[in-house]
Amino acid sequence: MAKQKPSIPKGTRDFGPDKMVRRNYIFNTIRSVFEKFGFLPLETPTMENLSVLTGKYGDEGDQLLFKILNSGDFTEDATHQDFDKGHKHLTPIIAKKGLRYDLTVPFARYVVMNRNDIAFPFKRYQIQPVWRADKPQKGRYREFYQCDADVVGTNSLLCEAEIVMMINEVFGKFKLNDYDIKINNRKILTGITEAIGAEGRESDFCVAIDKLDKIGQEKVLNELRQKGFSDEAVDKTKPVLEFKGNLEETIAFLKELFGANSETPTSSTGIKGIEELEEVFNYLSAYGHSPEELNVDFDITLARGLSYYTGAIFEVKVNNVEIGSVSGGGRYDNLTGVFGLDGTSGVGFSFGVDRIYDVLEALDLFPVENLVSTQVMIVQFDKQAGLHAVGLVKKLREAEIKSELYPEANKLKKQMTYANKKNIPFVILVGSNEIESQRYALKNMAEGNQEELTIDEIIDKLSKQ
Amino acid sequence: MAKQKPSIPKGTRDFGPDKMVRRNYIFNTIRSVFEKFGFLPLETPTMENLSVLTGKYGDEGDQLLFKILNSGDFTEDATHQDFDKGHKHLTPIIAKKGLRYDLTVPFARYVVMNRNDIAFPFKRYQIQPVWRADKPQKGRYREFYQCDADVVGTNSLLCEAEIVMMINEVFGKFKLNDYDIKINNRKILTGITEAIGAEGRESDFCVAIDKLDKIGQEKVLNELRQKGFSDEAVDKTKPVLEFKGNLEETIAFLKELFGANSETPTSSTGIKGIEELEEVFNYLSAYGHSPEELNVDFDITLARGLSYYTGAIFEVKVNNVEIGSVSGGGRYDNLTGVFGLDGTSGVGFSFGVDRIYDVLEALDLFPVENLVSTQVMIVQFDKQAGLHAVGLVKKLREAEIKSELYPEANKLKKQMTYANKKNIPFVILVGSNEIESQRYALKNMAEGNQEELTIDEIIDKLSKQ
Repeated sequence: MAKQKPSIPKGTRDFGPDKMVRRNYIFNTIRSVFEKFGFLPLETPTMENLSVLTGKYGDEGDQLLFKILNSGDFTEDATHQDFDKGHKHLTPIIAKKGLRYDLTVPFARYVVMNRNDIAFPFKRYQIQPVWRADKPQKGRYREFYQCDADVVGTNSLLCEAEIVMMINEVFGKFKLNDYDIKINNRKILTGITEAIGAEGRESDFCVAIDKLDKIGQEKVLNELRQKGFSDEAVDKTKPVLEFKGNLEETIAFLKELFGANSETPTSSTGIKGIEELEEVFNYLSAYGHSPEELNVDFDITLARGLSYYTGAIFEVKVNNVEIGSVSGGGRYDNLTGVFGLDGTSGVGFSFGVDRIYDVLEALDLFPVENLVSTQVMIVQFDKQAGLHAVGLVKKLREAEIKSELYPEANKLKKQMTYANKKNIPFVILVGSNEIESQRYALKNMAEGNQEELTIDEIIDKLSKQ
Repeated sequence: MAKQKPSIPKGTRDFGPDKMVRRNYIFNTIRSVFEKFGFLPLETPTMENLSVLTGKYGDEGDQLLFKILNSGDFTEDATHQDFDKGHKHLTPIIAKKGLRYDLTVPFARYVVMNRNDIAFPFKRYQIQPVWRADKPQKGRYREFYQCDADVVGTNSLLCEAEIVMMINEVFGKFKLNDYDIKINNRKILTGITEAIGAEGRESDFCVAIDKLDKIGQEKVLNELRQKGFSDEAVDKTKPVLEFKGNLEETIAFLKELFGANSETPTSSTGIKGIEELEEVFNYLSAYGHSPEELNVDFDITLARGLSYYTGAIFEVKVNNVEIGSVSGGGRYDNLTGVFGLDGTSGVGFSFGVDRIYDVLEALDLFPVENLVSTQVMIVQFDKQAGLHAVGLVKKLREAEIKSELYPEANKLKKQMTYANKKNIPFVILVGSNEIESQRYALKNMAEGNQEELTIDEIIDKLSKQ
């Protein structure tokens, strides 16, 4: 076999120990909060039948699915004609499976397949990688993890409030304080399109105003004009985009816009949206928090692209860091409809782990103490010391101290370099004198000092670290 | 879009909350022991370039690789002729990537690509799924997890001893006591082939005796004859297969066979194998354990199929359960050679999570207390009670108690059924009387009894559970 320079596919990554320890800190923090709120874990297969995936993410999404070549002789079912008709025609003949594109569709599939065994409302979380054949670029990968939590089978707006509380708790654990949880409601956006006289144009309206932060008001209004919104509709949109106010003022503004106090309201859907939002805020105050304390910001221009949202929508941005939203979600009324199960309303959200990683790194918020893996390493001066040290490392581990014995009696420098590279905070030195006196030098690698202690004293000291 | 009955690919599985909680218990136990012994986590991409995977698992393995269709127009690089030449010819043209088949090859690739940054000896563990297009059958899946730990970059036999200690500790945590860690050494097997006059036939010899447990001695000897081993060699094999004895007797038997005390030994490699094994046992006694205490069983007929082992080999079987080996591994001298990095000796092993799951289930060893996810649920009698309960669930969570509030004021029976189905051990009932008295009924779901307590008393009680 020829020797090769190995490489990994573009857009994918190895996560070595340094990165893994940090990533696990993020995963474990999120997982512990999900579980504290009563969410249970689910894992679905990496491969799904393409019949499950195709058509769920739009045409562009279908193109971005990674497809698995059928096992065995996949050419059996295809002819020259199939081949000539091009890859779009040929693909479903030679590939029946694809890689998971997100966690939402597999979740919906799971709910439908297990509807008789599930205790509804079903609160599940799912932390798994997904794959997209996107063009790789900075911060965009072909394999990345999603961390989703969803509740399906209830309309209760308590769930929306609990999502806000979970974000608050996760970010608190990360010592992240300066962020905004933007919240809006799709019914309010529907209400606005109705109030500006563009009923039924909600989808185009959302796509346009979703870009407000990026392209500014003028360009958003231009896009609306190009999409065929009337001059009157565009004129009426302007004050909506320009509006600034606190929660009460915003609600008053929208009530006015929707004619909530008139006998012929302009949008009953919009009014319903306001009521839903107010109920979420009621639950939050029952939790003992004002929106400001929770960094919740009611933003009537928050739209989110995905068409399946029907109620509340969320998006979280960390301030003072040049990174997009780190979390988002919303309520959907018919997630499982495409698989034949209607009427399961749900609400869910997702943490973007890669972005949270970048944020914690940029703000220097990774806690040092969580990133130590091995706590102490024993240096052996010679083979006899090595055998003696086996008994010591056993005692350390019995005391639940993460510890290792350098496996060979190499030169001291080599052993110390290893401990340094591996970021091990303490080293125990064992040679013939130490074996005789039963007192071992414990060296603090950061401070450089060392003291002579018995193994019990060392265990006592390290257990308190 | 037509509504479809969704399904998952054959040989794959969903893991719902019940199973996930048990699986996470297994993963977390193994992970905690790996880390206690100084192993650090690694994750590699799900997709590898086929150039990395192909040729590493034999012809059969190559057929079992799941291949990913190239993105975009994969037909561009292929012609009718390519198509006519069949799928084996066509595959490398239209698929450049495949799914990870095991964790060993990606690990070797990682070591080679990162050799300048790694602190050797490199102790890594890796817990990730792998994929094989095997025919699905009971206990054999197309997607399953492997849990590997390896040390590369040292010849020290301390590593072999530590593997035994890790298996001992993991199984101890699982309360699994009746198992055997079978150990042997490839050099001893080489020695046997040399001693029976079949030098260089080690590979065929290992494949044959690997089946001893399944097909019995006669059929193994027949297979050797069919493979062209001489009658003399087969006759000399017989006493080896029949040999029974304790550790000292076995070593004495092999020393005799290899002519260790003669001036012209029949196998110096075999003698080296004995020495290595003795050193592993020395390290184990330095740990304070006899082989019997550790369930270590020196088995000179243990062969293991994989050709890359060169030193110690292990296999673990649980007794009184009809399940194959649950763990195995060994030392290899040139894992990274195929990627151009020679001379990195290593030793590693793997836990079979699916089989360990089946063993723990068969022996009823899953601990009840670890499988509770939500500890307490609050029932709300009406919406007002729900708002009040929001403050209670907040307090419970502040005390780190996993808790949830049933999100709607549904009928009591529906709420209780949910708690039952989800296996929640305690329920708190909140209605208008409870709001007034600030005392809440805490119901023990298993025992059926309930008591009236303040929220602080409830927290106190549940924290002690």
